[in-house]
Amino acid sequence: MQTNFNRINEPILVLDETKCTSNILRMCIKAEKNKVAFRPHFKTHQSKYIGKIFRKCGVGKIAVSSLPMADYFAKGGWQDITIAFPFIPGDAEALKKLSLKANISIFVSNLFTAQWLNRNARFPLGVFLEVDAGYKRTGFDVNDVQSVIKSLNLLRKNRNLNVHGISSHFGNSYGAGAGNVKAVWDVSVQKLTGLRRKAGDESLIISAGDTPCCSVLDDFTGVDEIRPGNFVFYDVMQYTSGICSAEEIAVSVFCPVVDTHPERSEFTVRCGAVHLSKEFIVTSGGDKIYGLICKVNNGVPAKPVNDSFLVNLTQEHGVAKAPKNFIQSLRPGDTVAVLPVHSCLTAQNWKSYVSAGGKIIGKML
Amino acid sequence: MQTNFNRINEPILVLDETKCTSNILRMCIKAEKNKVAFRPHFKTHQSKYIGKIFRKCGVGKIAVSSLPMADYFAKGGWQDITIAFPFIPGDAEALKKLSLKANISIFVSNLFTAQWLNRNARFPLGVFLEVDAGYKRTGFDVNDVQSVIKSLNLLRKNRNLNVHGISSHFGNSYGAGAGNVKAVWDVSVQKLTGLRRKAGDESLIISAGDTPCCSVLDDFTGVDEIRPGNFVFYDVMQYTSGICSAEEIAVSVFCPVVDTHPERSEFTVRCGAVHLSKEFIVTSGGDKIYGLICKVNNGVPAKPVNDSFLVNLTQEHGVAKAPKNFIQSLRPGDTVAVLPVHSCLTAQNWKSYVSAGGKIIGKML
Repeated sequence: MQTNFNRINEPILVLDETKCTSNILRMCIKAEKNKVAFRPHFKTHQSKYIGKIFRKCGVGKIAVSSLPMADYFAKGGWQDITIAFPFIPGDAEALKKLSLKANISIFVSNLFTAQWLNRNARFPLGVFLEVDAGYKRTGFDVNDVQSVIKSLNLLRKNRNLNVHGISSHFGNSYGAGAGNVKAVWDVSVQKLTGLRRKAGDESLIISAGDTPCCSVLDDFTGVDEIRPGNFVFYDVMQYTSGICSAEEIAVSVFCPVVDTHPERSEFTVRCGAVHLSKEFIVTSGGDKIYGLICKVNNGVPAKPVNDSFLVNLTQEHGVAKAPKNFIQSLRPGDTVAVLPVHSCLTAQNWKSYVSAGGKIIGKML
Repeated sequence: MQTNFNRINEPILVLDETKCTSNILRMCIKAEKNKVAFRPHFKTHQSKYIGKIFRKCGVGKIAVSSLPMADYFAKGGWQDITIAFPFIPGDAEALKKLSLKANISIFVSNLFTAQWLNRNARFPLGVFLEVDAGYKRTGFDVNDVQSVIKSLNLLRKNRNLNVHGISSHFGNSYGAGAGNVKAVWDVSVQKLTGLRRKAGDESLIISAGDTPCCSVLDDFTGVDEIRPGNFVFYDVMQYTSGICSAEEIAVSVFCPVVDTHPERSEFTVRCGAVHLSKEFIVTSGGDKIYGLICKVNNGVPAKPVNDSFLVNLTQEHGVAKAPKNFIQSLRPGDTVAVLPVHSCLTAQNWKSYVSAGGKIIGKML
């Protein structure tokens, strides 16, 4: 099917495979140079097709954020999967089936769960202790050495459990801005290596590494495995934080203009919260931005139009602010591209991607 | 299947059919009392099953927000459907097929589209002129009488087009708060009736009426058709604006607790942006709220726990603030219910609802 990207009536999620592949390759090379294991997080793309690009680049192990996602990728042939989300006892039944298809590792994020697994783990599972190095979301407090040691001992007493190491997500790197990412990394890694030393087992691996840190830093010393996800697509949040360039953003939503209002420097598109998600960034001037507007040239987004962005989203409508002369060049039915603020949440809204050549690329529903 | 709502490991979207039916009935009765047509907006629930509840209450016409949604409900037997979203020329092909299944009306929101339809409408379509009475999203400016008259004349010259009237969405009622809803309504209705008078055709019907206005007001004088959508479920946004009571909220996300941190008055749930959407409200104290936390009693959400709400959402994680003693009563794996901030966007994320009895209720994907 040849899609005419200049005339669509329903929004589509367009994947630039070239940019995506180059984002993947760059991270593979960095991991290799640093001699760290590379376990990309597949929650961003949720697509077996994109998984195959990773595999061609030599990637053999992945992270996911849910059991259904682990199942989807196990069916796609992935044999080494970490479910990077705290295990709860109710997961055991689904995990048992899943562990017949692939080697599964789980996150244990508190003493309660370690105690439960000590008594109840009846099939082989890899385990990471999830440790909170300052982000304050889930996991053992990095200073709670006693609970960590107690949990390690409990888990090791059950022969079905294979404790790999300590895992952490430095989510506080996201708001930090490119210039401050190294400070977040250094402090967090120091805390984790300190905890490992206190736990008295240097064989525990340390798994960490989010998109901002892994994109900006060149040296991953202290960490044994990196686990970034968003870098596969990047987005406006990463671009405006200085983590990537606009040219590296590999997904965009193509959508039709529906109404133009040059008199108030606005136009409306058929592209709303259900297509992009309601994630926004706030500019230094206090404007909310829900996506950057680009023209579409030869089926690909051109660089963002100056001062043109979505300022409001309702369910299916997007309202864009833009310069008058740009708006006057638009007619209802014309196609524009929107670079998403948060590509993980945008991709989540779609059943498939469309490649620049018009090919439909499946993903997890 | 009997679902044990106190022990789930994946989040589920739970529909309280009793509350939902009572929300529907209340609005039906109000419309009847006011002798206005009732064309509920089905974008909120997107479910043929819930559509049947409306039908049992005597509803025969609906509004939707997209062509695929119109197609879904036409297949469900709905014969009178308004696509309450601006028409663009690229819609014609899909509309032609759709118009064989049901009587379809479209929104014409600018002169360009009226001109295009004047020349190109080759099959029967109902038409509403979409007029912007102050919300500033889409439609003719209510003061642009000249363009409205010109468009009406153009549309009437094509015999396939049946101009029903003027349609408007008073979206500015959402942020207004219950006390100010009447002012938004009065000003907007006055503008619309003024426009109709200037257009010189009192036979044009006026279609308006959003959830805040239709819930708070008892008198719909000036309007011929109401088109609210959200009231079928309501949500925390409507509740905190004084539009509904917490007891009227008919959907909630049941999810497992994964981690408890009483020392910082927080706990974490397996329920994130992909389950709820990133819509939030801001309290007078400046806190962001992404959902209210309830205990689950006998498979239904109890009233919200005081001072317990989600303060942050990432892709699959929700971080809740709550009083220490409540958190100390929770264990990983326990179920809590979350009342969503914006039920339309929450429902959009799901493939199905689960009824209180454990029945799976399908919806549009």
